[in-house]
Amino acid sequence: MHTENFSSRLLENAVNEFSKLPGIGRKTALRLVLHMLRQDKESARQFGESIIRLREEVVRCRVCFNISDTEVCSICSNNSRDGSVICVVENIRDVMSVENTHQFNGKYHVLGGIISPVDGIAPSQLEIDSLIRRVEEGTVREIILALPTTMEGDTTNFYIYRKLKPFQVAVTTLARGISVGDDLEYTDEITLGRSILHRVDFESSLGTS
Amino acid sequence: MHTENFSSRLLENAVNEFSKLPGIGRKTALRLVLHMLRQDKESARQFGESIIRLREEVVRCRVCFNISDTEVCSICSNNSRDGSVICVVENIRDVMSVENTHQFNGKYHVLGGIISPVDGIAPSQLEIDSLIRRVEEGTVREIILALPTTMEGDTTNFYIYRKLKPFQVAVTTLARGISVGDDLEYTDEITLGRSILHRVDFESSLGTS
Repeated sequence: MHTENFSSRLLENAVNEFSKLPGIGRKTALRLVLHMLRQDKESARQFGESIIRLREEVVRCRVCFNISDTEVCSICSNNSRDGSVICVVENIRDVMSVENTHQFNGKYHVLGGIISPVDGIAPSQLEIDSLIRRVEEGTVREIILALPTTMEGDTTNFYIYRKLKPFQVAVTTLARGISVGDDLEYTDEITLGRSILHRVDFESSLGTS
Repeated sequence: MHTENFSSRLLENAVNEFSKLPGIGRKTALRLVLHMLRQDKESARQFGESIIRLREEVVRCRVCFNISDTEVCSICSNNSRDGSVICVVENIRDVMSVENTHQFNGKYHVLGGIISPVDGIAPSQLEIDSLIRRVEEGTVREIILALPTTMEGDTTNFYIYRKLKPFQVAVTTLARGISVGDDLEYTDEITLGRSILHRVDFESSLGTS
């Protein structure tokens, strides 16, 4: 696989490490490593330590299981956020996506995956029980299911929905429809169909853009 | 520029460091960092330390100025290589390219750049004097100039050629011609022209492929 002749083991090592990253081939790895070589020692140290520290010091928030530097994450411990609305997402990336919209001021619950018989992921491996326990505390009034629109996402939605049945809590899901700026012509039939079924009052749609 | 909301400073730091790399945008940086997070601690440590150690411990070979883990690099200290032929290249990447051909068993000299009035690179900033000193020792019989075929490369070639005039040393340069497997139709005129001017004996061409 690698026939390169490195005159330096240190260089070879660094290239090997970089090329373990997804989407980084050996040519790119070499380019990145040669770039690091041109930086001063302090920059290289900062780079390396940022990865080591991240992996060693980062934890999962014990309330929402989002990534965190502290036992309870900055979102969960932020009292200006509405703890009565919980947005349920698959992973920490989805938390960032929702946060980037600046449209949500509630809290989160990160499942750490979705139910998938094919991949052998059972409900017990996900943070579903911990979600139910949060609801049991009685302060949550709405659960927003923000899982992917796949069979696995639907299965997980339904599983959680049934678990939540005994509680006085509204269960909602994200609106599906045509992306803002998209043409009808290029929208798939299922999305277009849903956007007709779940059409909204024109006046109420004016506020959101 | 970055409107992401990271719930973790450690995560944000690591993403910032990755996105300093050339060709790595913030989305890719996040993807790479999340990948690192999924690895075990030992892997993350190995990755980080490979960069730190590289930058802190690697040196330039004091003979040829190639990158090296030791004062004299593994190529210069390899006695089975022919020290009477020196291949002059612009940078350490070019050493790797030539090594990968497995066609060269001599030694190298890395200039660390080429003469470029536009970029303000003068001969004194390059490892040219050190090359002349190697020739002065009297054991070198051939210098292969393997610099880029650009105006700067030509200037540097000519500068070195004149510096070597006083010495009993053959100065050669890489053959330019049609790439192996390329069609004449798609070869630029200058390359095709050179390959006609510098045509080789058919029989002697049979050995190389």
